[in-house]
Formats: sequence, structure tokens, C-alpha cells
Amino acid sequence: MEITESNLGKMLYEGKAKKLFEITGRNDLIYIDFQDNLTAFNALKKGSFEKKGALNRDIASLIFRYLKKGGVATHWQKDVSDKAMVALKVAIVPLEVVVRNVLAGSTAKKFGLPEGEALSEPLVEFFFKKDELGDPFVSDDQAIMLKVATREDLAKLKTLALKVNALLIPFFAQVGIRLVDFKLEFGRLPDGEIILADEITPDSCRLWDAQSGEKLDKDRFRRDLGRVKESYELVWDKLCKQWENKL
Amino acid sequence: MEITESNLGKMLYEGKAKKLFEITGRNDLIYIDFQDNLTAFNALKKGSFEKKGALNRDIASLIFRYLKKGGVATHWQKDVSDKAMVALKVAIVPLEVVVRNVLAGSTAKKFGLPEGEALSEPLVEFFFKKDELGDPFVSDDQAIMLKVATREDLAKLKTLALKVNALLIPFFAQVGIRLVDFKLEFGRLPDGEIILADEITPDSCRLWDAQSGEKLDKDRFRRDLGRVKESYELVWDKLCKQWENKL
Repeated sequence: MEITESNLGKMLYEGKAKKLFEITGRNDLIYIDFQDNLTAFNALKKGSFEKKGALNRDIASLIFRYLKKGGVATHWQKDVSDKAMVALKVAIVPLEVVVRNVLAGSTAKKFGLPEGEALSEPLVEFFFKKDELGDPFVSDDQAIMLKVATREDLAKLKTLALKVNALLIPFFAQVGIRLVDFKLEFGRLPDGEIILADEITPDSCRLWDAQSGEKLDKDRFRRDLGRVKESYELVWDKLCKQWENKL
Repeated sequence: MEITESNLGKMLYEGKAKKLFEITGRNDLIYIDFQDNLTAFNALKKGSFEKKGALNRDIASLIFRYLKKGGVATHWQKDVSDKAMVALKVAIVPLEVVVRNVLAGSTAKKFGLPEGEALSEPLVEFFFKKDELGDPFVSDDQAIMLKVATREDLAKLKTLALKVNALLIPFFAQVGIRLVDFKLEFGRLPDGEIILADEITPDSCRLWDAQSGEKLDKDRFRRDLGRVKESYELVWDKLCKQWENKL
């Protein structure tokens, strides 16, 4: 069955930078349309730039195909139009899973530690996905108390997140980019299997130029550093040249 | 050796409601003098009432003696004067260990859940003791990253905290008090053994009248509910009548 905008069903969900639609006649799939807008600080700050949706769809798709080759199951099925993808329908686990290789952002601030300090081993953190609470950081025991995951689920999420990290570090390093940290979301298939979902893009990662340390991700928007579009384009350009014909 | 105020050495530390002194000629011991002051909200709110130091010393001492009988090693050695105790000198583990049986306070607020909801099992939480950072909540992995404890230490702290909880629930229940939550601190002896330190008092616990739900702890001060002194006295009176001649 050909999937185009013509057989889209109702919108299931409007996220901060993506719209999710049903696909008529395919209950197992969803259509994810990447938007040009950007938000930060729990959507208090808003912006956008032309072609951002397309760039992020391209980057996310490339990464999902690379991870699949590395043995990580993801929701990605195929790209459609210039800024959408078809993905498996999953029930999202309401935890943001953050992996840090280098201290930056909220965790550096929380502990009064300098940004840029490499960690001796990757740190995995969980945040409870609930906008009205500001997505609070949770321990394993709190996540279990909230009944969003079992202890076994959390162990699985950590294992998967660390596997994604181990694959993505060289993926970016080979194009001269340091993978500082990133956020993952996972979903459950109808049979209960947990797979990688959502997106991995400069919206959800901190990516620093390995030589200069220059930020190439959403922090340029968050912190008003300018050249947001150019940085996303640079990331895509480098990744595409290195990886597109290998996947 | 008789220990009195006359052989106190220099003050080691002034806490929010206790002063710690060296004891001349005894490097293994400290003298803890309980103060009449109360603080809340990281010491932004301050208060005091007469005999509060003596009441808390009496309650802490009774609880330490009860826990010792239950097989929990604590730093308490003996009571001196009417508001001090001699304790083993330990290196404090810089984690506040909170045990919750019922949701209240910061965790209820963080998750937008109602105060008073009983948990299906006790929840143990760690907070990094660092006033200038506001004692942030940490996961096990963050505590390890900060090098304040090893994974084995954290497992030990949880086991000890849950054992203290299992002993204290009936200790309070038998005098008609519901143990909602409490904060513990632990310390390391020179041989590395981790023992219970600091205090357990209405300053560090939430204690609710089992019948009426009335608060009998520092929340009366935090939330300006009045009758702070009377509540501390009531807790001591009930516990003393029930337990003093059994320990």
C-alpha cells in the first residue's frame, strides 16, 4: 500500500515539533510529520526555521537506519514526502531517557559542575514525561512507584540506551562531532516488546564540534547563539556524506 | 572518663539545630549539643522554642536505644547534660536518605499527587547534601557519578533505611502515631563500617496522629500551624510512657 498524505487519518497527537497521524487502513503504523518549529524551556520559548522539519526527518531517518544495522530495533519503517516518516505504532513509555557522556545542561547546573567535563562512564537519567509537572527527574524507585515502568523495564531501557550510545559515539566521531548527551524515548509494541521511538536529531542531542567545541544543536536556539539553521545543515551534510551510501 | 561540658574541645561543626564538639582526649567520640532553634526551607525560615533541644535529644536517644535493641548500629553512646549526647565520631556520607510510607511534602508536590496517599511499598530517596545547591534529589547513578558512594554503599544504605523503617513503624504505631516519612543520615567508622548517625526526631520525620491525621512534627512550624512545642512534647510524652522502661 502506498502511503501518502492522501490516506492520512486523523491527527493522533501534536508534539512540540512533530505531528502524528493515523494511516487509513493500517492500525499498526503511524505517519510522523516533522515540523519547522523549535521550542525550548518546556515550550516557553518558540521559534522556527525553513526546512528544519525536512533536515530533522533526514537526520532521524539516517540514524534509525544506522541503529537498525547495529542491532537496535526502532519504530522507523520508511521515509515519505520530504519531511515525514512512517513508523510502527507504539505505546510511548512516559520516560525521557537521557544519556550523558559529558556534563552539560541541567545536570551540570544541578550539581554546580562545569559544562564540558567528560564522565568516566556514561550516565543514564530518567525524566517523567509530564509537561504540566515540568518533566521531573526521577529515580528508578520513583518511576516504579509511579507505575510507569517495572524494574525489569528500567533495566531494559538502560541497556538499550547504552547500546544506542555506544553506536552513536563513533557515528558522530567519524564526522568530527562529539556526542555530549541525548534524549531517547521508547515505546511498547502490542506484544510488549520495547523499541526505540520518537527521534534522534539536533533537537534532542548536544553535538559539539570535536575540534572547536562549537555547539551544533538546539542549544544555539536555547541560548540565542545564532546560526541555528546553518548548524543543523552542517550536521546533516557531514552525516550524509559519511553514512548515506553505507546504509 | 566522665564527659561533661568541662572537657569539650573545639566546635567541629554547627548544624541547623545541633552543635558538634570534640571531646578532649577522645578522638573516637563527639559531643552533640541539641539546640532550641528550628529551621525550614534550607534555613530561609528560622524559629525556636524553649526546651526543644532537650526534647529532641530525649526523642533521638530513645529511638537510637530502641533501634540498637533491634539490631541497627547507631552512633549514640550515652546522654549527657539535659540536651546533649556523646556519639561515635564518623565521616558523614553526604546523602540524606529519605524513607516514605505515605506521600507528602516535596515528592507529593513533584508528582502532583495528593498528600496522604499510602504507598504500596516504602520508597527510599537520596538527596545530595549540599546546602548551596539546595540538597538536590539524586538517582543511584548520579550519586555514583558524584563519587559520594559506591553502588554497594547505596544498596547498604537502602537496606539499613528499610530496616529502620520496619522497626519504627510499630514503634510509633503503638502510641497512635503514623510514621509518614523521615530522613536519615549515615556515617562511616574508621574501619569503613556504615552506621546510623545524625538524629531521628520530629525535626526529621513526618508524624501524624493515627486517628485525626493531625501533624505532630516540624510541618507545624514550616506551615505555621501553631502548637509546635505542644506537639513535640506530646510525641515525647507518648513515646516515653510506652518505651522508656523497656529500653
